[in-house]
Amino acid sequence: MLYFIGLGLADEKDISVKGLEIVKRAERVYLEAYTAILLVEKDALESFYGRSVTIADREMVESSSDQILADADKVDVAFLVVGDPFSATTHTDLLLRCRQSTPPIPVRTLPAASILTGVGCTGLSLYNFGQTVSMVFFTDNWRPMSFYDRVAENVKLGLHTLVLLDIKVKEPDLAMLARGKVVYEKPRFMTVAQCAQQLVETEEVKGEGICGPEKLAVGVARVGADDQEIVAGTLGELSEVDMGRPLHSLVLVGSRTHDMEREFVREYAVDKGTFDKAWVAQFGA
Amino acid sequence: MLYFIGLGLADEKDISVKGLEIVKRAERVYLEAYTAILLVEKDALESFYGRSVTIADREMVESSSDQILADADKVDVAFLVVGDPFSATTHTDLLLRCRQSTPPIPVRTLPAASILTGVGCTGLSLYNFGQTVSMVFFTDNWRPMSFYDRVAENVKLGLHTLVLLDIKVKEPDLAMLARGKVVYEKPRFMTVAQCAQQLVETEEVKGEGICGPEKLAVGVARVGADDQEIVAGTLGELSEVDMGRPLHSLVLVGSRTHDMEREFVREYAVDKGTFDKAWVAQFGA
Repeated sequence: MLYFIGLGLADEKDISVKGLEIVKRAERVYLEAYTAILLVEKDALESFYGRSVTIADREMVESSSDQILADADKVDVAFLVVGDPFSATTHTDLLLRCRQSTPPIPVRTLPAASILTGVGCTGLSLYNFGQTVSMVFFTDNWRPMSFYDRVAENVKLGLHTLVLLDIKVKEPDLAMLARGKVVYEKPRFMTVAQCAQQLVETEEVKGEGICGPEKLAVGVARVGADDQEIVAGTLGELSEVDMGRPLHSLVLVGSRTHDMEREFVREYAVDKGTFDKAWVAQFGA
Repeated sequence: MLYFIGLGLADEKDISVKGLEIVKRAERVYLEAYTAILLVEKDALESFYGRSVTIADREMVESSSDQILADADKVDVAFLVVGDPFSATTHTDLLLRCRQSTPPIPVRTLPAASILTGVGCTGLSLYNFGQTVSMVFFTDNWRPMSFYDRVAENVKLGLHTLVLLDIKVKEPDLAMLARGKVVYEKPRFMTVAQCAQQLVETEEVKGEGICGPEKLAVGVARVGADDQEIVAGTLGELSEVDMGRPLHSLVLVGSRTHDMEREFVREYAVDKGTFDKAWVAQFGA
């Protein structure tokens, strides 16, 4: 049996009791470590589980999954995913490969906390969210802005948009690669400030009035952890905030809000004066 | 400190390891038991936790919350919520009351698995979901169809819609109430079949071509449990399915799908022939 086990958001103790039981007894344990990260290192997991964990990078999951699936029709294999196992499409792909194996590999999924619902900590109602989008690091010659159209669809309906932010954990250094050496860059995690800046920059290019510097948003950092942080403000204000260590996410606030959402979010405002003015300007009194 | 602790979806072992530690040491433990239920009884929780748990019904949470919040500025109180703590607005309300208390009551939230992401088990990409809606039991004289407009917004964008289904766990029997007696009705949980029927009925009234009997949907039951079940088909077909004990949810499939979603969902089809025909008719080849 291949078990897809969600680890939740913050540390080694966010796994479910049931998930932990399976990890302890499985034949092999893999940790998917390229779509999200926990806020603790692999050795914290290993010492908590009392066993060794193999890091499964993108290359292993997408190209060498035979290694993960070996004998999984006979023995139990645990595949650990930060957040909920089905946040990333890649894992659907792995599941399909289990079905297509001969003999088929039985699969079981253990859901866990995800940023998609954890973002409810902002006080914004999950019923008022539209599509989730993700944003990658802009570079000099690659600035993919396709997320903008989806954000615009949400904004036009008055819905909130959760923006998931890029992480780069095992990227080859291209300059070194050109010289024939594989050297990995230092891991990078997009911050709320970078996301806000890229949203404003995208608005300058697209110009439909969706995410200019005056628009209200909420930044979150380390949801579910002891040092969870929430900051509300205009994208202009959020472009300047420092929310500390990863992971960060951002919510662009939609107009279809009720008073309780406003009251709740206002508490996190960088500046309550700006917040109130921006709110009235965007959503009315 | 008031701890909002998510219990996840299926049974007593879906709580996180961290959540369990807090439950074991808290001064008092409440279980919110009117927006969702676990698939196990209260005594299974109590014996697993090794302590007693007070059921918090809607009346207690919405009107007598002082009892829950008593001394929570000094002692630890655990407020357990099935699924993720912020799926229901009511709990935002309770959190606001903590802030407004004198002295303010510190609050911490422990996210957990929610049906909002657990529904990823269908193979439908969470990035392609629009707004979540909820549906209540229609009665002879109360057939609230306001969800339809939100579903229509999703459908027009090609997005999937998660429909959360009504539960009635402590409803006074109105006939008995008229005779001066408070007697509670037997708990009721909306099934996938009832939801499909009500969608089709709503379509008959509204007529915008959003959720007629030919539309494709996926029903899920007991997500995250051993006996989790997934069934795909037209709403006409799903109106006839029996998916067993609660809880059930339904996803109306949107057109903005990729091949992997189709391949994954098809496996759960009531009838693969009907499924393929409906897919081509709605979404093209």
